[in-house]
Amino acid sequence: MDENFLLNNETAIRLYHDYAKDMPIIDYHCHLSPKEIFENKTFKNITEIWLYGDHYKWRAMRANGIEEEYITGKASDYDKFLAWARTVPMTIGNPLYNWTHLELQRFFGIDEILNEKSAPQIWEKVNALLNSEGFGARDLIKKSKVEVVCTTDDPADSLEYHLKLKEDADFDVLVLPSFRPDKGLEINRDGYQEWVQKLQQASGIEITSYEQFLQAIEQRVRFFHAAGGRVSDHAIDTMLFAETTKEEAAAIFAEALKGNKVSPEDEKKYKTYTMKFLGGLYSQLGWAMQFHINALRNNNTRGFRQLGPDTGYDAINDDQIAKPLVRLLDAIEQENGLPRTIIYSLNPSDNTVIAAIIGSFQGGGIPGKIQFGTAWWFNDNKTGMLEQMQALSNLGLFTRFIGMLTDSRSFLSYTRHEYFRRLVCSLIGEWVENGEVPNDLEFLGKVVQGISYNNAKDYFQFQGKEALVR
Amino acid sequence: MDENFLLNNETAIRLYHDYAKDMPIIDYHCHLSPKEIFENKTFKNITEIWLYGDHYKWRAMRANGIEEEYITGKASDYDKFLAWARTVPMTIGNPLYNWTHLELQRFFGIDEILNEKSAPQIWEKVNALLNSEGFGARDLIKKSKVEVVCTTDDPADSLEYHLKLKEDADFDVLVLPSFRPDKGLEINRDGYQEWVQKLQQASGIEITSYEQFLQAIEQRVRFFHAAGGRVSDHAIDTMLFAETTKEEAAAIFAEALKGNKVSPEDEKKYKTYTMKFLGGLYSQLGWAMQFHINALRNNNTRGFRQLGPDTGYDAINDDQIAKPLVRLLDAIEQENGLPRTIIYSLNPSDNTVIAAIIGSFQGGGIPGKIQFGTAWWFNDNKTGMLEQMQALSNLGLFTRFIGMLTDSRSFLSYTRHEYFRRLVCSLIGEWVENGEVPNDLEFLGKVVQGISYNNAKDYFQFQGKEALVR
Amino acid sequence: MDENFLLNNETAIRLYHDYAKDMPIIDYHCHLSPKEIFENKTFKNITEIWLYGDHYKWRAMRANGIEEEYITGKASDYDKFLAWARTVPMTIGNPLYNWTHLELQRFFGIDEILNEKSAPQIWEKVNALLNSEGFGARDLIKKSKVEVVCTTDDPADSLEYHLKLKEDADFDVLVLPSFRPDKGLEINRDGYQEWVQKLQQASGIEITSYEQFLQAIEQRVRFFHAAGGRVSDHAIDTMLFAETTKEEAAAIFAEALKGNKVSPEDEKKYKTYTMKFLGGLYSQLGWAMQFHINALRNNNTRGFRQLGPDTGYDAINDDQIAKPLVRLLDAIEQENGLPRTIIYSLNPSDNTVIAAIIGSFQGGGIPGKIQFGTAWWFNDNKTGMLEQMQALSNLGLFTRFIGMLTDSRSFLSYTRHEYFRRLVCSLIGEWVENGEVPNDLEFLGKVVQGISYNNAKDYFQFQGKEALVR
Repeated sequence: MDENFLLNNETAIRLYHDYAKDMPIIDYHCHLSPKEIFENKTFKNITEIWLYGDHYKWRAMRANGIEEEYITGKASDYDKFLAWARTVPMTIGNPLYNWTHLELQRFFGIDEILNEKSAPQIWEKVNALLNSEGFGARDLIKKSKVEVVCTTDDPADSLEYHLKLKEDADFDVLVLPSFRPDKGLEINRDGYQEWVQKLQQASGIEITSYEQFLQAIEQRVRFFHAAGGRVSDHAIDTMLFAETTKEEAAAIFAEALKGNKVSPEDEKKYKTYTMKFLGGLYSQLGWAMQFHINALRNNNTRGFRQLGPDTGYDAINDDQIAKPLVRLLDAIEQENGLPRTIIYSLNPSDNTVIAAIIGSFQGGGIPGKIQFGTAWWFNDNKTGMLEQMQALSNLGLFTRFIGMLTDSRSFLSYTRHEYFRRLVCSLIGEWVENGEVPNDLEFLGKVVQGISYNNAKDYFQFQGKEALVR
Repeated sequence: MDENFLLNNETAIRLYHDYAKDMPIIDYHCHLSPKEIFENKTFKNITEIWLYGDHYKWRAMRANGIEEEYITGKASDYDKFLAWARTVPMTIGNPLYNWTHLELQRFFGIDEILNEKSAPQIWEKVNALLNSEGFGARDLIKKSKVEVVCTTDDPADSLEYHLKLKEDADFDVLVLPSFRPDKGLEINRDGYQEWVQKLQQASGIEITSYEQFLQAIEQRVRFFHAAGGRVSDHAIDTMLFAETTKEEAAAIFAEALKGNKVSPEDEKKYKTYTMKFLGGLYSQLGWAMQFHINALRNNNTRGFRQLGPDTGYDAINDDQIAKPLVRLLDAIEQENGLPRTIIYSLNPSDNTVIAAIIGSFQGGGIPGKIQFGTAWWFNDNKTGMLEQMQALSNLGLFTRFIGMLTDSRSFLSYTRHEYFRRLVCSLIGEWVENGEVPNDLEFLGKVVQGISYNNAKDYFQFQGKEALVR
Repeated sequence: MDENFLLNNETAIRLYHDYAKDMPIIDYHCHLSPKEIFENKTFKNITEIWLYGDHYKWRAMRANGIEEEYITGKASDYDKFLAWARTVPMTIGNPLYNWTHLELQRFFGIDEILNEKSAPQIWEKVNALLNSEGFGARDLIKKSKVEVVCTTDDPADSLEYHLKLKEDADFDVLVLPSFRPDKGLEINRDGYQEWVQKLQQASGIEITSYEQFLQAIEQRVRFFHAAGGRVSDHAIDTMLFAETTKEEAAAIFAEALKGNKVSPEDEKKYKTYTMKFLGGLYSQLGWAMQFHINALRNNNTRGFRQLGPDTGYDAINDDQIAKPLVRLLDAIEQENGLPRTIIYSLNPSDNTVIAAIIGSFQGGGIPGKIQFGTAWWFNDNKTGMLEQMQALSNLGLFTRFIGMLTDSRSFLSYTRHEYFRRLVCSLIGEWVENGEVPNDLEFLGKVVQGISYNNAKDYFQFQGKEALVR
């Protein structure tokens, strides 16, 4: 992993070092904690920053035969780190291997390979740094040249820390909320009624009807907007659509509010109408709307009971998405005009489907209005990223791609942007080597800088701190 | 894009230049207008020949943020051309980029890159050529060494221009009809009843029963046969099969003839029986039958209302195809023996499925009797083509592949055959470089010539002009 | 096809020759005949060993236009061989081309290309060898350095030849049964009731209830275990799951025992409960459980009537597998703990789905407990294998992969292990060349030896002959 890591031709090397490397980062979708950013959280050791919450690593350790005690159990932090160090060499070919060493290099200046032998020294060295000046959450963000961070937030959230960060003159990174109303859409999930109560409290709007529910939702969207939010996010594990009316949706809502489950068809209708409402609202406010499709969650009941959600027991679903996705987008488009929209699927077999569908909804004079989101989660690896980029290039405009995000809970994940940019340069470099694209470095450099940073900047039009602090 | 464009090894270079380059073209599936061919249509400017009907380019322009006025609207031809020229550099990585420049090079001798700066000169130069001798539809076809063109025609069509072209001694290219009876299969689509009226008129057979309907269809098949037609084409957007009898199909037909919609299950039955009838007829006449599967059309209602079908609002569907496809092929095979059959899916996730299924129906002493059709529409690009070829190679006989077609509405699209042949040579060259295939250029040259031209010639057995003009 | 065939970089060459080449073989899933092994079957000519039962070759010959008479019909062995020899050059790009020549090289010392011209000499030379000493079934197995062969056996089988081979001191290869109870799961298939009769006889347990049925099944599992069996295999053409109880399953069984067909939903319930029972039993005995998913069989009724099953009329299905697979694995896990499990799908679009799902069920301190099975059947080719390996690497631990099997009916197929190992070395070599993995040959050599042999050895823990012969 030298300076030309992943750059397998001369054009790629020049594009990366001359154009991509120094671009700032707009991390428009992640799961960082605004509280930890505000408090400039520090980490007592490498296990805390690396292993406390990283289910990618947990899965690798389980697959490597490590007992759960050393993964999420009662073993000491040092023993957990050792168990991870023993696992690292066994992850060759997996992105964890490269992410691990990129993070050691970039944040801690460690060029060694992590394994059982090097573990004790690396433990000492990293911990010493973590306990010194300049390794708090804010420092890691600044060090990574991040300009914008969009966290993932519930509509009922008070955005306390986003608002505090807005006022904080010492930290010039924009930390913005993303609107993730899944709990308001999942009408049959346990806790739906309690969530409506929370929404009532947060919005200050009494909710006894669907009309009021939508008013309360809108109030929260506008509250997020005032806090600088310009992005929503929807975990649409199962893509769906059903023709319906507001009256039908209202009746279904009333039924659920009484604590009843509704039929699968009614669930579809409720979600469809609510999404149409939200899509129109996003469109009106100039937001971008994200769909994350085809995750299959909490598959291992034993594991879920022990550890809860997001603990490494998720997978990829293979539901058909084309027809319901098209019909939902079309319904929003017809009713209120589509907002900027970014579509991700966890199943790479959907790549060409998505790349073709976005082409049916482009328009309105906005470059790349409908985006095929970058390779997500299980696809966040070299081949997964290249396949997403290739599908996008084949069927749409790669040059208008808004590029990478981290989707991460870790402050060290910003090296994934470097990984991504190297692949972008490598792909374009190959086109040049094959004679498919002329060797015009100035133009290609602009393309690379667009995909690295400028396209996202133009696309989201986040407002700078000065604008936000009224 | 020099002479070795896409040819990334020595074997590929020799195969292309010594064997592939000069082979004629059999364009066995396209959407050219026989009237325009007969009349040797000329073009007033490059916008007419490039942008009037090309929804591939329209989609790219929309994705690039061009306003609709400059795409399909009232802007002047020159302004539309400028808007396209501005878009071209942004299409790097998309096949449009290479097609654009191949067409400029091959037909107009222009080696420059098209962009905003070069646009005015290119406008002048191309328009001057288009308005000079030798740039009519027939000229462009002859220049491309095309021997056969199969257009796409409705059963009720009079084939007026095909018949005129047959008699025209000045033009020795075979322009043959393809039988595309979609409107007769889509029993629930608006206009079905009107279409049956048209069929009645065209065939001269009064249609008051399914039996008569089938007689009329058969009359048209035989009429197309007499005009030289040897190919049918079916847009099976949703692959389907249902067990049924002629009696059931007749009852369903009677219902539809009254102007009623039929149930989805009845639609399947009607289509299944009618396809079995047609398959048997094709088999008897020695025709080839084409299935185009998994298109998802007219997705953007706003766009459809404004511009109608085929205007860039289509996409890829992800319906399951394996079981209904197998059962339909098997039903035809059992009843009457399968004709030569070519299967295309718009969803590349179906590649291995199709490549495996065709292997279950080969036989009867006909080399490559059941074909996996070349990468279609959204897959008509470098990786799409290579993936189709690789799937076919892995599971079947690449050497028996009938190769490329244009599927195009444009007289300039013949350069796609060049693009395709370069990829064929490149793929075989890689096998040689990797030691998977011996470096026997004479044999490999024959394979390349087969895939470029000879296999299609042997497969379709189109009759030459002298045979046709009785 | 020289000694560096498929090894396209220096690291790959060193890994293959220094580490992989000489490793023994554990063929943990094949369709060899234990009787033929016991009797050390010899072959009268190359047609018998190559063409009598190989539906891969039959499909290629049909696609090449060979008449059925020369494939499975009455033509002479020599004429059939000639027809195959004519077909071989047309298979370039298909794995048959390379398998054919690897088998000629490795077993018969023939370096020539097989074609119509070389056929007569090769016919003579191979037949002479086949009729000399050292070319019986046992000899071919020993020559291939095979240590373990797991055949595929019905629960009602007496395992006569496995037991004889166990006692045979002259043959130190372990020939073990695999438990394949498909006929006991396929409750709606013709012959189910007869099969229950056979099970009754084989187990000596009278079967008038589901309880007794399960007892009889368990008796056979324990009988296979005593014979050294440690692996089961399930052809789950359609992946399925339905919530159910033992009482429901018992009632469904009772219905079927009367000779009645059961509803599709009841079939799912019966299969689900029976699989849960079997999974628990495998887990208890330390077995590995194999699922083979998404085959679509006997598609060509005409061909099936003429030749029966496994004659080249199968294909790939595209059923959705994620949800039922997850729910079945989870149900077994909850009830009794999952056994070691190996999951194969015939549809490569399932690759990432499977690679993600196995990660949700890893654990218990067993390295690679849940395996993504190697590229199967139609995917048993260069790109198919590399895609399976790449998906596994991206989402799991390639280093824990148990690697190749033959799945073959032929004693010559062991060269597929060589083909596989070359690809493993080539893939790892590429990672090294790209700087993704350090060039630590000693470590990488261990990885290669693990995937070639050691991982399977550790995973299955087959007991050696001395342990078996009590």
